[in-house]
Amino acid sequence: MKLYIRDRAPNPRRVQIFLREKDIDIPVIDLDIGKKEHRTPEYARLNPLQQLPTLEFDDGTSLSESVAICRYFEEMEPEPPLFGVGARGKAEVEMWQRRMEMAFLYPVASVFRHTHPFMAGLEVPQLPEWAEANRPRVASFLKILDDHLRDHRFAAGGQFTIADITGLVALEFMRPAKLSLDPALEHVARWQADIFARPSVQLPKPAEKTS
Amino acid sequence: MKLYIRDRAPNPRRVQIFLREKDIDIPVIDLDIGKKEHRTPEYARLNPLQQLPTLEFDDGTSLSESVAICRYFEEMEPEPPLFGVGARGKAEVEMWQRRMEMAFLYPVASVFRHTHPFMAGLEVPQLPEWAEANRPRVASFLKILDDHLRDHRFAAGGQFTIADITGLVALEFMRPAKLSLDPALEHVARWQADIFARPSVQLPKPAEKTS
Repeated sequence: MKLYIRDRAPNPRRVQIFLREKDIDIPVIDLDIGKKEHRTPEYARLNPLQQLPTLEFDDGTSLSESVAICRYFEEMEPEPPLFGVGARGKAEVEMWQRRMEMAFLYPVASVFRHTHPFMAGLEVPQLPEWAEANRPRVASFLKILDDHLRDHRFAAGGQFTIADITGLVALEFMRPAKLSLDPALEHVARWQADIFARPSVQLPKPAEKTS
Repeated sequence: MKLYIRDRAPNPRRVQIFLREKDIDIPVIDLDIGKKEHRTPEYARLNPLQQLPTLEFDDGTSLSESVAICRYFEEMEPEPPLFGVGARGKAEVEMWQRRMEMAFLYPVASVFRHTHPFMAGLEVPQLPEWAEANRPRVASFLKILDDHLRDHRFAAGGQFTIADITGLVALEFMRPAKLSLDPALEHVARWQADIFARPSVQLPKPAEKTS
């Protein structure tokens, strides 16, 4: 098995944090999307949508979509459970994973994709007005999240789950999107400090990366 | 238990088709989003994101996000399985459900939300340029889907699943979004005829609705 990623891009990073939480080690192949290495016919055979990440199995078949790849490993290695436990628990994780994705990560990504010069040749057309429309959505979701985290240690309750991982990459992605976190959101700040301290989240230092 | 919906809106409809496939009957409360009945403090208490559908339990707690509500019922009533079987099967359903949602339903919804006069007071600002940017995305995904359906009866293989339900509501939503299906996509047309014929999908006739 191997995992096609783009180093430090939000979606591959979600899968990589998930795998570290499960203590699963899969070799990675790092594609350079600036050089459009994800737009080759070889990669399109693995994922016709030409997005990252994609998991390639040893028989040459493949699986795409970050959450689908994570769910595959949840089924193969159930401990620790990162998609929730029980009917209601699993549904709560699904609800918060989707809120983190649709109401937080996607608006942040929209700001990035429609303003950052790096995306000019990849997001066509870039619409600064669409980026502007998404800024207040990020702020409004973060207020809802802050209110929720007042009574919950993690996104979906008492346990760290994939919903926190999606929230974490959205928080990280605010930086290149040039969005800042309102310091008045004290429960988000507490949660951020808590999840950012996890060993699974630590990025290798550049010096270690090549060793 | 009761389910807050907006009649015939795509996301509530996904849940309603899913429940009919499971032969589960839940009373519904139909909110009028034109009158902003989903923007009241009472509804915000059930779903702070003020979206539909939401499931309210008898103890007053609630669950939102269409796919989370469906997953709850999948866990409570596993037959027929609509989220796949086995690690790889579940992951394939998740992959295609997400593709149907992100690469098909959301671009169609973006065209609708950013062009239709009904949405003028609800989608602020309406950006016709963003609608235009989404038109070719719909066309390009439908080509990928047609190619996939050449060798697959349903979206995620041999069985009808939630991925087909999401695809079905996206197909339906093309009409108010004023998007048409290219008749050259013969495998999509065959799949559409197949899934549209299912009893779970049939809408009550207006005369029956009030009886």
